[in-house]
Amino acid sequence: MKKQFSGALLTLLGDRSNSDSTIVSELQRHIRELISSGVIGDDERLPSTRSLARDLGISRDTVEAAYQQLDTEGYLVRKTGSGTFVAKQDRIVSSTPRIVQSPNTREAHQTIISLASRGEDILRAGGIVDQTDVHPFVAAMPDIETFPIEVWRQLTSRVIREHGHKLLMYGDAQGYEPLRIEIWKYLATRRGVRCDPDQVLVLTSSQQALSLIGTTLVDPGDIMAIENPGYHGAKLALLAAGSFLKPVSVDVEGIIVSDINDSRAPVRAVYVTPSHQYPTGVTLSIERRMELLDWAHQTGSLIIEDDYDSEFRYDSQPLASIQGLDDGEQVVYMGTFNKVLFPSLRLAYMVLPKRLVKSFITARTLLDGQAPLLTQAVLHSFILEGHFTAHIRRMRQLYHARRDLFMTAIRQHLNAYIDAETPPGGLSVACYLRDGFEEDRSVAIAKSVGIELPTLRRLYLGEPARNGWLLGFAALPPQVAESAMVKLSKAMADFYK
Amino acid sequence: MKKQFSGALLTLLGDRSNSDSTIVSELQRHIRELISSGVIGDDERLPSTRSLARDLGISRDTVEAAYQQLDTEGYLVRKTGSGTFVAKQDRIVSSTPRIVQSPNTREAHQTIISLASRGEDILRAGGIVDQTDVHPFVAAMPDIETFPIEVWRQLTSRVIREHGHKLLMYGDAQGYEPLRIEIWKYLATRRGVRCDPDQVLVLTSSQQALSLIGTTLVDPGDIMAIENPGYHGAKLALLAAGSFLKPVSVDVEGIIVSDINDSRAPVRAVYVTPSHQYPTGVTLSIERRMELLDWAHQTGSLIIEDDYDSEFRYDSQPLASIQGLDDGEQVVYMGTFNKVLFPSLRLAYMVLPKRLVKSFITARTLLDGQAPLLTQAVLHSFILEGHFTAHIRRMRQLYHARRDLFMTAIRQHLNAYIDAETPPGGLSVACYLRDGFEEDRSVAIAKSVGIELPTLRRLYLGEPARNGWLLGFAALPPQVAESAMVKLSKAMADFYK
Repeated sequence: MKKQFSGALLTLLGDRSNSDSTIVSELQRHIRELISSGVIGDDERLPSTRSLARDLGISRDTVEAAYQQLDTEGYLVRKTGSGTFVAKQDRIVSSTPRIVQSPNTREAHQTIISLASRGEDILRAGGIVDQTDVHPFVAAMPDIETFPIEVWRQLTSRVIREHGHKLLMYGDAQGYEPLRIEIWKYLATRRGVRCDPDQVLVLTSSQQALSLIGTTLVDPGDIMAIENPGYHGAKLALLAAGSFLKPVSVDVEGIIVSDINDSRAPVRAVYVTPSHQYPTGVTLSIERRMELLDWAHQTGSLIIEDDYDSEFRYDSQPLASIQGLDDGEQVVYMGTFNKVLFPSLRLAYMVLPKRLVKSFITARTLLDGQAPLLTQAVLHSFILEGHFTAHIRRMRQLYHARRDLFMTAIRQHLNAYIDAETPPGGLSVACYLRDGFEEDRSVAIAKSVGIELPTLRRLYLGEPARNGWLLGFAALPPQVAESAMVKLSKAMADFYK
Repeated sequence: MKKQFSGALLTLLGDRSNSDSTIVSELQRHIRELISSGVIGDDERLPSTRSLARDLGISRDTVEAAYQQLDTEGYLVRKTGSGTFVAKQDRIVSSTPRIVQSPNTREAHQTIISLASRGEDILRAGGIVDQTDVHPFVAAMPDIETFPIEVWRQLTSRVIREHGHKLLMYGDAQGYEPLRIEIWKYLATRRGVRCDPDQVLVLTSSQQALSLIGTTLVDPGDIMAIENPGYHGAKLALLAAGSFLKPVSVDVEGIIVSDINDSRAPVRAVYVTPSHQYPTGVTLSIERRMELLDWAHQTGSLIIEDDYDSEFRYDSQPLASIQGLDDGEQVVYMGTFNKVLFPSLRLAYMVLPKRLVKSFITARTLLDGQAPLLTQAVLHSFILEGHFTAHIRRMRQLYHARRDLFMTAIRQHLNAYIDAETPPGGLSVACYLRDGFEEDRSVAIAKSVGIELPTLRRLYLGEPARNGWLLGFAALPPQVAESAMVKLSKAMADFYK
């Protein structure tokens, strides 16, 4: 542990020659990140201040100050005589429910503003860090350079001219009706979703959909099942709602449905990414889909179907949505335009069981009211005039080609270190480290040559079953990805020679 | 009660000649609204199915079906032999904390998806209904016809041309930095807010600010103090976060600070609208501001300063913000562009104490990620090039003139029924019914001539201290408002003659 820890920090701190106070806060930040991302786990013992100071070539006081602060923040626990340990992060399903503090147990006169326990949990879990620039391997990122921005500009101008001041007033909290109708048509024809436009809710992001589910359907202490490994944004949103997470393993057919039930209490809902599981890329088989629906009907539980990126399937027709396999009353379906068009758009949607529509709209009015009307109206025109379908078709071809070249390059340059299967769809590929190679180490090696490797570890709850990376192939031209691979391959070879 | 209830429903159902099933759902909806809005209160007894059916001229089966459904939904409680009663709505601070269900107490095999208790509470409390069209007396509504939409169109076009594809990528979750800097400058110079741009968080709405406060700073069972009467959006957001509300009365100097403390437990935060209290319009006096800050420092509690509409002050300079009166570490400050520019814009902001910035940004990434980059960039240009300041100046003049004409018209047409003082700022005026006139009755009378009167009652927690209306004067030309007043005045006279 000690060596590994110092190694990771050394790489992170890099060749800085900063003032001591900067180093303290840098050090804190890195240790926090190592804890939040699960690189160092609950109860793990940290190196002594003396040895870490020596390893990093910084003063012992600096390390002491950083540990002290992290102790105050609750990340670390210092035990006199036995050392410094990572505090329990409390992120995995446990047999005792979280305790909700009653007002009386909170100290009556704290003199500075403190976070609520919920706020502390959220801060500790760490939020979602969206990449603000595109660099090689960023996972689940579309190509934005090919977006027809000039079409968007002209449509915006025209929509403002045509609608005038009507666009400025509050719109329907459920979403601009003409847009809902286009979403409905698209989902019915392309994804086999069974609904009517009144079941569609326009949101700003999948994250908002998850947040709404948390607000509306999750009581503190409820058990929510999630794919393991799985999408971290879903985990964080459901944890923030106060639920316990029940991790359920994924095999070649997708989530193992028979493992969903929990012996302690009913599982309220399960979050799945059936089109291509995030991050493994597997498609949930039709047998599993039926099994999942049966489970949901028998237990009265909900299926949360996140159909992200289902537009991008390269080798065969995608399976229709789970939502459309029966009456859809057991499924909350969600999708987003932010990956298909561009990330800063901020428009997404849900399809809700009829009986949940009213409550979701109501809760949404409390979250942020509604989505911007102008953007919704522009998107509506973009879809109506065929630009949406054309863009998807173009992107599918582009990403298909990029995927193939990316896989060839992986086999050529990284085959010694990783094992990766060609994903049937999506924007990323799961790469598993071969025996003898470690995730943390590989991340540090990549970092030393300026490459950020998105890890699989952060997508697991508990001990990762497999180590590796989730590499994005869609956002950048293949030659950019390939030259990063060459660099990474060389750095790995240098280290392991 | 019986007469009044049938009366309200009769007006609401109007002269419809619909099928029975439509009437059932209409009737349900109206009763739900009467309960949610507080028009009929906890434990109140409803008329028997027989008598209500007779009063409304509909079949008894229809009433029975509606009552039955509302019973199932938890709005009503039916007691054999003694009648039908409004179920406790549980919206006011109570001495026993809400019980958080543990998984074991929930029924193991419900066969349809049910809402979480939180979701039920939100559905019952009713959400926020934003007006999607402008009609006389809509409260707190700006004039949108005067917004320079052509300027906005040109700026949008130019911003897209200048920034190009860079605009399409994820932006900073805290908000587009150049926009944060402009907001900071504006608040520092116009509102005396003391902060730096890194304390500014760009959001989509005040409602999102309240929702973030709920997520980050409120644990279930925490006591939050609010002005009474006060802004219902704040109440609903804080209730949705699981807090108990402590209503605190308002007098001519604003919230009565000495009444904030609760004997049972510390008050976590107080929500105030100091520039002009919503809905009474009073300005929080400087003495009260100092008292409030003292209270916050002594108790370690937080002040939530909602500085909505502070741009619109007509007779004197506005007081500076509470946030700027000391180091600002005890205050969360919020404001919105949606009222100053146009409602469908969806951009607002908070200024946070330094130590809360990180946690709020983290929580925000879970709520909806970030605000749309293009809209933020357009707003930035709009401010930078002086359009923002010019628009505020123009609107202040327009609203000033409209307020004066509106007050003259009130005195001319409605003086027999209401007592109203000229508000020093804002977009609405609080009108108090004179003795002998009832709020529900006046609403029903207005409705019978097609006028919607926003009531004061819905802004109270518990029994309203005063009855009346909150009339918006800003959104429409004075002649439109005046002719509505003439109509209302005539209807009132007809009824009370």
